[in-house]
Amino acid sequence: MSDARAPLALGAGIFYPGGEHVTSWRSPAAQPDRYLDLDYYANFAKTAEEGVFATLFIADELYVWDRFASGIEHGVNIRPEPFTLLGALSQLTSKIGLAATISTTYNEPYHVARKLASLDHLSRGRAAWNLVTSASDEEARNFGRDSHLDHGVRYRRGEEFVDVVQGLWDSWDDDAFRYDRESGIFADRDKLHVLDHHGEFLQVRGPLNVPRPPQGHPPLFQAGASEAGRALAGRTAEAVFTISPDDIDGATALYDDYKRRAVAAGRDAEALRVLPALSPIIGRTRAEAEDKLRLIEELTPDLVSLDLLSHYLGEDISDRDIDERFVFDFDHDSFNQSKSGYASIAALVEGKDLTIRELYRTLLRRRFVLGTPDSLADWIAERYERGAADGFIVMFPTLPDSLDDFVAGIVPRLIDRGVYRAEYAGDTLRENLGLSRPVGRYAS
Amino acid sequence: MSDARAPLALGAGIFYPGGEHVTSWRSPAAQPDRYLDLDYYANFAKTAEEGVFATLFIADELYVWDRFASGIEHGVNIRPEPFTLLGALSQLTSKIGLAATISTTYNEPYHVARKLASLDHLSRGRAAWNLVTSASDEEARNFGRDSHLDHGVRYRRGEEFVDVVQGLWDSWDDDAFRYDRESGIFADRDKLHVLDHHGEFLQVRGPLNVPRPPQGHPPLFQAGASEAGRALAGRTAEAVFTISPDDIDGATALYDDYKRRAVAAGRDAEALRVLPALSPIIGRTRAEAEDKLRLIEELTPDLVSLDLLSHYLGEDISDRDIDERFVFDFDHDSFNQSKSGYASIAALVEGKDLTIRELYRTLLRRRFVLGTPDSLADWIAERYERGAADGFIVMFPTLPDSLDDFVAGIVPRLIDRGVYRAEYAGDTLRENLGLSRPVGRYAS
Repeated sequence: MSDARAPLALGAGIFYPGGEHVTSWRSPAAQPDRYLDLDYYANFAKTAEEGVFATLFIADELYVWDRFASGIEHGVNIRPEPFTLLGALSQLTSKIGLAATISTTYNEPYHVARKLASLDHLSRGRAAWNLVTSASDEEARNFGRDSHLDHGVRYRRGEEFVDVVQGLWDSWDDDAFRYDRESGIFADRDKLHVLDHHGEFLQVRGPLNVPRPPQGHPPLFQAGASEAGRALAGRTAEAVFTISPDDIDGATALYDDYKRRAVAAGRDAEALRVLPALSPIIGRTRAEAEDKLRLIEELTPDLVSLDLLSHYLGEDISDRDIDERFVFDFDHDSFNQSKSGYASIAALVEGKDLTIRELYRTLLRRRFVLGTPDSLADWIAERYERGAADGFIVMFPTLPDSLDDFVAGIVPRLIDRGVYRAEYAGDTLRENLGLSRPVGRYAS
Repeated sequence: MSDARAPLALGAGIFYPGGEHVTSWRSPAAQPDRYLDLDYYANFAKTAEEGVFATLFIADELYVWDRFASGIEHGVNIRPEPFTLLGALSQLTSKIGLAATISTTYNEPYHVARKLASLDHLSRGRAAWNLVTSASDEEARNFGRDSHLDHGVRYRRGEEFVDVVQGLWDSWDDDAFRYDRESGIFADRDKLHVLDHHGEFLQVRGPLNVPRPPQGHPPLFQAGASEAGRALAGRTAEAVFTISPDDIDGATALYDDYKRRAVAAGRDAEALRVLPALSPIIGRTRAEAEDKLRLIEELTPDLVSLDLLSHYLGEDISDRDIDERFVFDFDHDSFNQSKSGYASIAALVEGKDLTIRELYRTLLRRRFVLGTPDSLADWIAERYERGAADGFIVMFPTLPDSLDDFVAGIVPRLIDRGVYRAEYAGDTLRENLGLSRPVGRYAS
């Protein structure tokens, strides 16, 4: 293992409760009646901790996907709220990080700063924040708005929001509390700082009523892949969750782009970890992995395929015949959801002649990397060693079996290949991601 | 024990982390360096569960009390965020309720509905909500406003907020989920309901992305004692947390007032539990209890006494001599914090000639009931039996010792007197409060 570089870091993602896609609950090993049962998540967390995953990575959405009728009947539209879940899991684990997805569009920074600081204290330094800006009108309508904030506006708000939250975390110096019964002095008043923020979107006085978190600032994950998203990550994120190109050269170029942006923002390249998504389908043989992928395809009803494409495109194509030819004739300029997802569909279909079903299956297939434990361990090690990734957020196709297979099959092989640690480097998530602890903004 | 009436119910309150007043951290048994340590709260919860307390009752504030300088130096201004804390405690307890204080002024109902529903699922039916409307300008300034909402406005918003949260909890019928792998049907679409609320303060479409909570609706606690607060409690609350008069006839009259309001709102009198605050100071002898009270007085610096009075009165009197005569000459009409607290000071001083110190000590003293385990058990049993209370929210003067003393000394005596259960009636908080489970608003 290189001395200069932090070891490969893995995040154990929960995107939908049953796995990385909405119909994963139909897989043979799935346990759909347990998606609000804490023990289900506790088993997941304990297995991930056996696999020395640096962190859990809990996705979140603030709505039921009911724009299209199929979503209600066929999809997993339910999930526990991340902080109650991670609060509970903090007591059933001791090393793994606890990363929660939080929208900067539909939250107040004082609440967000408090929740993350509290989770960081209760877990003794394991909290993290996956920043999203939220991307759908459904979410807007649950929070008093008719439609979503414009893409550029929500990234500007996101950046201001991060600044406020980090400022609130610095309200109390690390050594502000004296607890001196004799004199009656609980805290030093000159070690308390009033943020008094007045910005474009936010007015927040402070101070925060939680001491500075054990990690100083719980690490900031960020997933935006658009120009605005990458720019924000370069300036503020400590780990970026990204969809990397399939080819390793493209993945390396994207990795370098993030690192360059961090350096351009006056930061150390190592202060930003690049963690692409990885959805492995693991078979004892390649053919078994192919069979698993075919099952995933078959378990997705045609209507769900059409509706998911409608969702990605921002245009309802659910009444079309899934076997008709797909024509890409949508209006990009008015599109206000995930811009990078939309652009990647446009690039994918260009110059090709695909039916809608073929398009959907192409999109589905390229999310996955298929292989045996050996070939997947090679794939991971190569991406790490060639500088295409500092690690991966693993999106498990089906739960709980994909995680079990990953920990039993791939983790030991990564250790054998010398790219992965056999035990945790430290007690805090920062230590396990190779990130230093920030000093407070008021520290002299 | 009467057949007709639910047994006496107790709530174990945490107001400040060290006990019921801001300087409780100075008491000899206090553990002030553990106020962000989960084990501290876990020990509290486990002791309360040994004492068959129906619920924990976690107070909350959304600011640091820094209006007056003494608050920073001498007071306990830090506390964990309630949901991360209760999520964690849900895994270390199995019977006790988990009641969190949530402001309807500085929150979004979609978030609140999700957090409580999730906590109810993760704890298997033990979540509850203590509704507050927030009462200070300090909180407003942490949430983008210059000053607090007007008293009447915030109660109107509070009532609309409750309606929206309960409507979101009813988004899915209890039997909406089929999890049928074969057909691919996860949920019945006719058992999903869209709230589509458009009210005076809130616009919330729904549905909620969490199944209906095990308790249907986690029980609603409410503490408002003003006319607006009592009216709201009568219409919506299932447990009211109140400050009862010292004399039992006055306490019974207040109890009857709440019950009458519930009945006038078309509800059963038993559907609203009246749980006054009780701050017991327990001594082996009455003299020992008096000594403990004197210590609490002595541990409160004069400046803190002045600042607390300033806070209650909404008027800065911190530069006055604490031994000068107190003159009540403030403007009631412009007062926008806790109206009932203010009125009770006005009533207390009327016709009396007190110094500021005497006023403060009188206010402090009347918060407490002093006695031996026997006399306190008698006091509690009498209030319950004579219809002045359905139970109490116990506010412990100092932690952890006051809770330990309560469970060791008073609980067995209440059981002996036949007013308290020796074990939990059921697994959910509703069962343990004697409250029925509400049907959903869309149920036919």
